[in-house]
Amino acid sequence: MQRIQNLIQAVEEPDYSLAEKAQAHLDNLTKPLGALGHLESLAKTLCILRGTLKLTQPKPATAVFAGDHGVALAGSSLYPREVTAQMVYNFLNGGAGINVLCRQAGAAVKVVDVGVDHDFEEMPDLISAKVARGTANLLEGPAMTREQTLEAMAVGAKVADSLIDEGYDLLIPGEMGIGNTTPSAALAAAFTGKSAAQVTGRGTGLDDDGLNRKVAMIEQALALHKPDPSDPLGVLAALGGLEIAAIAGYALAAAARRVPVLMDGLISCAGCFCAVRICPTVREWLMAGHASVEAGQRVFLAELKLRPILDLDLRLGEGSGAALAVNILRAAVAIFNEMATFESAGVSGH
Amino acid sequence: MQRIQNLIQAVEEPDYSLAEKAQAHLDNLTKPLGALGHLESLAKTLCILRGTLKLTQPKPATAVFAGDHGVALAGSSLYPREVTAQMVYNFLNGGAGINVLCRQAGAAVKVVDVGVDHDFEEMPDLISAKVARGTANLLEGPAMTREQTLEAMAVGAKVADSLIDEGYDLLIPGEMGIGNTTPSAALAAAFTGKSAAQVTGRGTGLDDDGLNRKVAMIEQALALHKPDPSDPLGVLAALGGLEIAAIAGYALAAAARRVPVLMDGLISCAGCFCAVRICPTVREWLMAGHASVEAGQRVFLAELKLRPILDLDLRLGEGSGAALAVNILRAAVAIFNEMATFESAGVSGH
Repeated sequence: MQRIQNLIQAVEEPDYSLAEKAQAHLDNLTKPLGALGHLESLAKTLCILRGTLKLTQPKPATAVFAGDHGVALAGSSLYPREVTAQMVYNFLNGGAGINVLCRQAGAAVKVVDVGVDHDFEEMPDLISAKVARGTANLLEGPAMTREQTLEAMAVGAKVADSLIDEGYDLLIPGEMGIGNTTPSAALAAAFTGKSAAQVTGRGTGLDDDGLNRKVAMIEQALALHKPDPSDPLGVLAALGGLEIAAIAGYALAAAARRVPVLMDGLISCAGCFCAVRICPTVREWLMAGHASVEAGQRVFLAELKLRPILDLDLRLGEGSGAALAVNILRAAVAIFNEMATFESAGVSGH
Repeated sequence: MQRIQNLIQAVEEPDYSLAEKAQAHLDNLTKPLGALGHLESLAKTLCILRGTLKLTQPKPATAVFAGDHGVALAGSSLYPREVTAQMVYNFLNGGAGINVLCRQAGAAVKVVDVGVDHDFEEMPDLISAKVARGTANLLEGPAMTREQTLEAMAVGAKVADSLIDEGYDLLIPGEMGIGNTTPSAALAAAFTGKSAAQVTGRGTGLDDDGLNRKVAMIEQALALHKPDPSDPLGVLAALGGLEIAAIAGYALAAAARRVPVLMDGLISCAGCFCAVRICPTVREWLMAGHASVEAGQRVFLAELKLRPILDLDLRLGEGSGAALAVNILRAAVAIFNEMATFESAGVSGH
């Protein structure tokens, strides 16, 4: 699809020449060299990605992409499939974890129906962009067609564009989809060559038997599709979800607009990782909000060589861990902007 | 001293019976069981320490206790001794890291001169409570007398009492004192039996030679004083600093008033650890803001069996890592208070 091709061609490297100047400023502040550790790295990264040494506080938004999964009907999750739609209403009413954490961190929340198996009435805060009523069951055939995959990517890209046009400058990929840790873990295995057991977690809370069944399902899907990592769109279509494809498009469009993406947990990382395999320079625009309990998420972060800001045993998804990490980014910006220098404070330097 | 004895007797256990009710509430919220991981633990801990299931947002304050160290004159730090006083002015002018991070997290900052080798003019925001113009050199004799130690503890206790009287309900022990990682690491070795090499870090940024000299100094101090862990006040007097003793008194008084203490880095933990050795129940009122780069701090946290909220390679001190962690506590309170339940949101439960 031309739209996605255009985005791929638009993604450029950030301006790494700012790194040295940003660090020189940090080294002038009244603290021992490097004493604020990863907080300094985050401030520097924001300078590079924003392309300026005049940092302002980020204006973050989370887009929660919701979609259903054929595999959920095969019993991959503890929760029934209708919870996807029920949670969409919860997001729209402001009662879900992502709503609370975005309010606390000063971030907006947008909800996007890219593939829920439910007819929503028209609601002002719901972006309706249904590509299908859920994916097909990846145990039996491709979860999506290539056309659906591109269409879902275009939905994500359009949402990113709108948010950036509204002035948001830090995009969080959020998601909801009962069953969606299974395709995400399958994508981790397909792209990295790890075994199903190495990338599969308990999702919403499977016991040992449930975990073993889930590993077996992922093995079955990999055996069926024999995904070819050199065809990332094909891998995403065979194994992925509509919300995962939307996240891939969202990250791609953000990168094309030179806007940083703050990733959340397993599904969020799966979508962004697909974008990186489709367009490697997208990697440069990604930041890692947190390390999840889900093994596959840590595999994605390790492959991307990104250090997570938080590590709090979270496994909620929705964008929640990234929203929480916004607080730390705000602190990094405050440090960069507000601390006195050795000279201005009259402190003997190093 | 009677004051400290009274505090020790006043410290009681928090109300652990609230744990189950707090978890039951968390389990009712629209998320998989336990999916918010450590954020749920933090909310539960706050319920227990505050003695209520009606959590309000914390009103935190950092007291920055400043003191000089005889050992700094022996070259244990990269920075000259006068930086302690210069940084006090920086705190009062709002330009230091702790000021920025407390502003960002909505916390107050108080500055206490408990032992700086400088005559400060009267300033409205400076609490003047100088016990001595710095400690003696612990390489040559006890850093403090027992009387000075008790006096500095009483200073910290009085500051805690005033803050609590002003309505602050989460106390951060902050500090400034050129050279103070050396006595803090020595305390870690003395109390835990670890070797000097196992507890000693690079402080403000020593190179390998500097680190080796610092380890040798700590070995020399331990050999000279032969600290007896069964006499914690004696250990603190021999090795400690005036600001470290003040932090011990501050933590003790907070615990006696049933107010949680959010610890920062090495020196903050050293002071709180002394309080725990003097009065073991103080441990129950402590929370760990972050894991520092300093090895001795991680030894203290491991001994206290406390999980740090953040791990961002910080080594600034002042209270900075704890101030940063306040953001996460605020998020935990928001989750506890604001998330919808399965019933209220009409979501199918587990």
